Amino acid sequence: MQNIEDTDYLKQFAQRVRTLREAQKISQEKLAERAGLHRTYIGMVERLERNPSLVCIHKIANGLGVHVTELF
Amino acid sequence: MQNIEDTDYLKQFAQRVRTLREAQKISQEKLAERAGLHRTYIGMVERLERNPSLVCIHKIANGLGVHVTELF
Repeated sequence: MQNIEDTDYLKQFAQRVRTLREAQKISQEKLAERAGLHRTYIGMVERLERNPSLVCIHKIANGLGVHVTELF
Repeated sequence: MQNIEDTDYLKQFAQRVRTLREAQKISQEKLAERAGLHRTYIGMVERLERNPSLVCIHKIANGLGVHVTELF
């Protein structure tokens, strides 16, 4: 069960991923492919349907070509 | 199935948490309590037995009193 605080973390992360992805004009599927993740995964993260793991967070950063700290 | 790269991310994070925790001279159980996590969780993270989620990463940062980017 997630509380409000948890959801804020997910929302902040989702917005950060979307902002960086849209700045590069790539689709959710394209980012997932670059990150080596399932093609629907980025969409689920951006819709707050996933609480991504440490490894997935690093893969998303790699897919965006940014240092992982830029996602926080 | 984690590959070598995945394990490197876990190792790097585990070492960072341990370094910050030991600098504050607090036990794994004490940090877990401060973070609002199960008392064995920090031990499992430090032994690479857990791939912590985004929310847990934020909770660990809060428990250490550092900004989440300091864990990367």
